Amino acid sequence: MAPLHMSKFPQPIEDLIRELGMLPGVGPKTAERYAFALLKRGAIERERLAKAIIESGLRLSTCSTCRNYTEADPCSVCSDPRRERDVICVVATEQDLLAVEATGEYRGLYHILGGTLSPADGITPDDLTVRDLMRRAEADRPAEIILALDPTIEGESTMLYLSRLLAPQRLKVTRLARGLPIGSELGYADEVTLTDALRGRREMAAATKPVPVE
Amino acid sequence: MAPLHMSKFPQPIEDLIRELGMLPGVGPKTAERYAFALLKRGAIERERLAKAIIESGLRLSTCSTCRNYTEADPCSVCSDPRRERDVICVVATEQDLLAVEATGEYRGLYHILGGTLSPADGITPDDLTVRDLMRRAEADRPAEIILALDPTIEGESTMLYLSRLLAPQRLKVTRLARGLPIGSELGYADEVTLTDALRGRREMAAATKPVPVE
Repeated sequence: MAPLHMSKFPQPIEDLIRELGMLPGVGPKTAERYAFALLKRGAIERERLAKAIIESGLRLSTCSTCRNYTEADPCSVCSDPRRERDVICVVATEQDLLAVEATGEYRGLYHILGGTLSPADGITPDDLTVRDLMRRAEADRPAEIILALDPTIEGESTMLYLSRLLAPQRLKVTRLARGLPIGSELGYADEVTLTDALRGRREMAAATKPVPVE
Repeated sequence: MAPLHMSKFPQPIEDLIRELGMLPGVGPKTAERYAFALLKRGAIERERLAKAIIESGLRLSTCSTCRNYTEADPCSVCSDPRRERDVICVVATEQDLLAVEATGEYRGLYHILGGTLSPADGITPDDLTVRDLMRRAEADRPAEIILALDPTIEGESTMLYLSRLLAPQRLKVTRLARGLPIGSELGYADEVTLTDALRGRREMAAATKPVPVE
């Protein structure tokens, strides 16, 4: 028997599935699930999503100083007079910036690198904001540049690369401490992490000060 | 120290993350990942996705016969003269219809139920296209109604419900065979499936016909 037609969805659904399939990690089945969920939703909800997608592109630009997404240039961090202006924390992505902000521990400025060096993926210094960072370091001469990249092969080699590149400027360049993450079990820690934790050990304040007796 | 502002992304990104988080099974982290992937993409790609979302709603309606999504009413299956018009296959969703179509085995018509009965989730016959199916069965008096719902508790009880509801019309109502799925291991099959497979056992043609000797 000749195969009948209709081995696929109506064109608008196929279009929607194809476009949703462009999202990272979304395969055909997930895209299909998203598409039908959107169809079951009302027109208002679909329009809200479509508008958010379009507006994100129209309303956002990149901060000319730190390269973060922003509605106004310079961004709210770079233009905040309460922030310490002589420390720059270099992060790979906007999400990493938010993770550092969430600690409530850091009051300096940022620099979004836009990723980490990865020769395997063809990501070279020119694909990142390395040149901007160099210019900024030279112009502002901050008291400290904190390299806050992932402790992965790519992150580590990018930090090594940046620290060498920054060396001629004779600035203080630091990196985040490596050690045991809170809640982890020592027996399961890999030897590199445990070595780092040992080398970076800190004196316990409680042991140096006598406990006050009431 | 007073907490600084900027503990979140610029508003357009927050809006986008919130809207993407409405997709099924998408949590805040995944929505964030999608949002930044869309931002890294070009404006053309964002517009294509937004357009596909809007157009899906504008261009699609529901087939008045089978309740499937369609651009024209009746849909391409219901209006296809080559299809067998006296068999109706009842499926829960549009995706299930496509799964049946993909077998290339079925040439009849469909009826999209829109889900399965689930008292726990408050899904009653009125939330499904049960009434449409009854009307259709009465009007068209098909030679067979195939209930092709999931062999789950909800699917099974929905099939039981429909078969009882259809009983007064004295039509042939069938259900899909249950048995061992291909590639599965007998030792791992649950007893219900194995019982079904035993009861539904079929004679092997090769054993009844002598093998032709050349």
